[in-house]
Amino acid sequence: MQAETAGRRRRGRGSGGAVRTTHYGQLTNPFQPQALLSGDEIAAIHATALRILAELGIKVLLPEARALLRAAGALVDPETLMVRIGADIVADALAAAPGSFVMRARDPGRDVAMAPGTLAFLSGAGCPGCSDRIRGRRPGSLADFRELTQLIETFDVLHMLTAVVEPQDSPMHRRHYDTMQVQLETSCKVPFVYARGQAQVEQSFEMLGLALGLGAGFADQPRCYTVINTNSPRQLDVPMAQGIMDFARAGQMAVITPFCLMGAMAPVTLAGAMCLQHAEALAGIVLAQLVRAGAPVMYGAFASNVDMKSGAPAFGTPEHVKASIVSGQLARHIGLPWRGSAGAASNTADAQGAHETELSMWGALLGGANLTIHAAGWLEGGLTLGYEKLITDLEMLQVMAELCVPVAGGEAERAFDAIAQIEPGGHFLGVDHTMARYRTAFYAPLLADLSNYGGWIEAGSMRADERATTVWQDRLAAFVLPPGAAEGLEPVRRYIADHIAAGGALPVS
Amino acid sequence: MQAETAGRRRRGRGSGGAVRTTHYGQLTNPFQPQALLSGDEIAAIHATALRILAELGIKVLLPEARALLRAAGALVDPETLMVRIGADIVADALAAAPGSFVMRARDPGRDVAMAPGTLAFLSGAGCPGCSDRIRGRRPGSLADFRELTQLIETFDVLHMLTAVVEPQDSPMHRRHYDTMQVQLETSCKVPFVYARGQAQVEQSFEMLGLALGLGAGFADQPRCYTVINTNSPRQLDVPMAQGIMDFARAGQMAVITPFCLMGAMAPVTLAGAMCLQHAEALAGIVLAQLVRAGAPVMYGAFASNVDMKSGAPAFGTPEHVKASIVSGQLARHIGLPWRGSAGAASNTADAQGAHETELSMWGALLGGANLTIHAAGWLEGGLTLGYEKLITDLEMLQVMAELCVPVAGGEAERAFDAIAQIEPGGHFLGVDHTMARYRTAFYAPLLADLSNYGGWIEAGSMRADERATTVWQDRLAAFVLPPGAAEGLEPVRRYIADHIAAGGALPVS
Repeated sequence: MQAETAGRRRRGRGSGGAVRTTHYGQLTNPFQPQALLSGDEIAAIHATALRILAELGIKVLLPEARALLRAAGALVDPETLMVRIGADIVADALAAAPGSFVMRARDPGRDVAMAPGTLAFLSGAGCPGCSDRIRGRRPGSLADFRELTQLIETFDVLHMLTAVVEPQDSPMHRRHYDTMQVQLETSCKVPFVYARGQAQVEQSFEMLGLALGLGAGFADQPRCYTVINTNSPRQLDVPMAQGIMDFARAGQMAVITPFCLMGAMAPVTLAGAMCLQHAEALAGIVLAQLVRAGAPVMYGAFASNVDMKSGAPAFGTPEHVKASIVSGQLARHIGLPWRGSAGAASNTADAQGAHETELSMWGALLGGANLTIHAAGWLEGGLTLGYEKLITDLEMLQVMAELCVPVAGGEAERAFDAIAQIEPGGHFLGVDHTMARYRTAFYAPLLADLSNYGGWIEAGSMRADERATTVWQDRLAAFVLPPGAAEGLEPVRRYIADHIAAGGALPVS
Repeated sequence: MQAETAGRRRRGRGSGGAVRTTHYGQLTNPFQPQALLSGDEIAAIHATALRILAELGIKVLLPEARALLRAAGALVDPETLMVRIGADIVADALAAAPGSFVMRARDPGRDVAMAPGTLAFLSGAGCPGCSDRIRGRRPGSLADFRELTQLIETFDVLHMLTAVVEPQDSPMHRRHYDTMQVQLETSCKVPFVYARGQAQVEQSFEMLGLALGLGAGFADQPRCYTVINTNSPRQLDVPMAQGIMDFARAGQMAVITPFCLMGAMAPVTLAGAMCLQHAEALAGIVLAQLVRAGAPVMYGAFASNVDMKSGAPAFGTPEHVKASIVSGQLARHIGLPWRGSAGAASNTADAQGAHETELSMWGALLGGANLTIHAAGWLEGGLTLGYEKLITDLEMLQVMAELCVPVAGGEAERAFDAIAQIEPGGHFLGVDHTMARYRTAFYAPLLADLSNYGGWIEAGSMRADERATTVWQDRLAAFVLPPGAAEGLEPVRRYIADHIAAGGALPVS
């Protein structure tokens, strides 16, 4: 072992924040979905979930949802609000739910297919606050929401927009206008719509229809999405049930995601948490399909564990990774595209946070998740969206996206002639085979600093999270609207002005 | 999306450096080996490697090795020292090399099997220097070698010892005595022996034989190992060829590892680098099998790329990950256990270093590597072994080891009764099903701090690399010799004293 340290020959500097043209638009997962449970065990979890729904039921707080489920044959207890859903109702819903569909963006180049083998990444979402090394940790604002949406726009490895941070300075009666306006003004990727009551949801659809120039006709395809979190265990609250119904009615995509923390809101065993997750997801899927057979839904999974000493939720744990892989097995068992979840408990963009997000991201990748949320930027279990964490995670996502590019294994790549040209102990730096390819041969890092130690010290011995500040600052400074983003928004702005003048629309909780 | 931030309920502190009993001794890879090239493409790389060996040849600097190869039918040019090896010679060697074997440790509980599906991790190795946050960056010393070997001993997820750092204060004529003595005095795991000339190697075998109480009889099983780096491209220097021969003669294990940096010592294309790696590894395997048919060898892979702007070697890149997966395909094609390589170019234990090591580690894992070297602690492309990096990487390795524990999917784990007990919106914290399991349900972090932000700030807002200092300090302070390590070493010490008095043995270069 003499040659395995190659650092000595290093010189030069990292590539810093240079903006590079990438092509990570629609990815195909290069890995076979993995399995940690047998087919029989997966079938047993599915059967247990059906038993939970049929025998124990789920509490549904929205009267219209209960009525719809009762009409389909579910048993509803008007006192406890418990709804017991038979296996045949579930089977009908699973037969109706589409196994694949395409999320249509304003820019067709940003369309995202949800089908076996597709792969898409989303930033952290739903964070009440955000932080960066310049301005510190703070409650989310609309300005933050705009900046972060701009950053998301500039990275094609982030495939749709998210509710990246909660703009707490935007009053609740107008927050859906503000967030939709920013998303439409900033990006042509598929936008996110919060499910916070029928009025806000339908107005969001109307704004999107106006931006697309399609009016209500926008609903012929899924063009926006929401995330529905059941209130584990076994409860579906008013805005979530309403959201499922509103999105299904409009043919828009709902990601039905129980948030099952093993040992807290879910059983301490992985298989038990999976039974609960599966039952709750199935209940949501049933409700969507009862509203509109064929409504686009995703099976959502976000199961991790709490630390049993402190009760703190943990991410990137073995339990989290395993749950993602088993969730993929369950999603394939029912034939639906599915959403996985990365995440980090770390309070800063350090090695802990990097490992937590990457370990959980690999769980989603190996589970065959079609869409992974919180894949970049999550800190503190989602309380904060970190600007620097966003950048360090994006390097990881870009490497994963590069893995989706097939390896060329043809005769020219096998390079026999180049190998013949180079004498033993020589090098390939100047050979024609290298010269013809070197500019595009390798991934160019977004953030990684490959300087040797001396150069790194001279340049200020900056950690990755420190260098990341420059990357997001440069991206924001260089931000230009993508083609088409500014077009057709006048009707949206007029709509928003009129509605705010009329008092806006409060969320429902 | 309302429930997906769970940070609020967090309280309490991270588990810090508490020493926990773990059982990561012999792991089985839970994932199917992945493929990035077709079977035909793999066969074509193998065929190209055979053509490289037969038509172009490899330069072999050791006369005895050339003589042995010539005797087997290879064509040797006495002027250029080029040896051309026919496909039939390679085929015979591959037929002779064992597809599986067990590395026998002084403590049978530390045996490591090399066979399809086995998984073992090794720390960074061969680093000229080391660094920690207390004492800074420095050339490696024997004291560092001892400390790091102690740390390796305390983590059962590190399966064999390594040449973790170069003890530069130990004079060259006695360094092999010092390193063997420290390894034997510290640990009962399989030791590493440097291939630095016949005298040092044979004396190392003698010391190991004395420690085992077996004398020369120790050679009935592989009980130590070395790493042979070819001098890419297409060259095998004197100590490396001698090492292959010495280890094969003694039935000890050699990991034949070309270090192929695409665009530098190897073609710029991944397939080309694989052809070169494969040819060089095959040449080493042939030499070993000619010395002793059935000698235990591993197919070694360490291919990554250089940054084409600066010439700096890069690790954890897409090219590195892909090369690991393709290397696994090649190893399976020839039916040998194989060694993969993680690594990091980062100068510090930050998010960059975490992602580099983890991405490359996943490449080895998904490629089905039986042994992965540099899986923890490597910084600066191997110039430095970082104490804190060792700890942050070990958290990752422990999580990966936990993934090898099968998921229990039986009726009790599906937890229907527990789910039935908990009302909608309740929690599982106090239920019998949880109480019976919570102590052992989840992985207990080595380093991860799950505190909420306020608690983390109060405790000094320490990053993972800062907290890691306490972990290695605590481990060293609490270090106790494993059972049996101190036994039977008197003959070794006497042997060393006698040999040093007689002048020691200089390395060969």
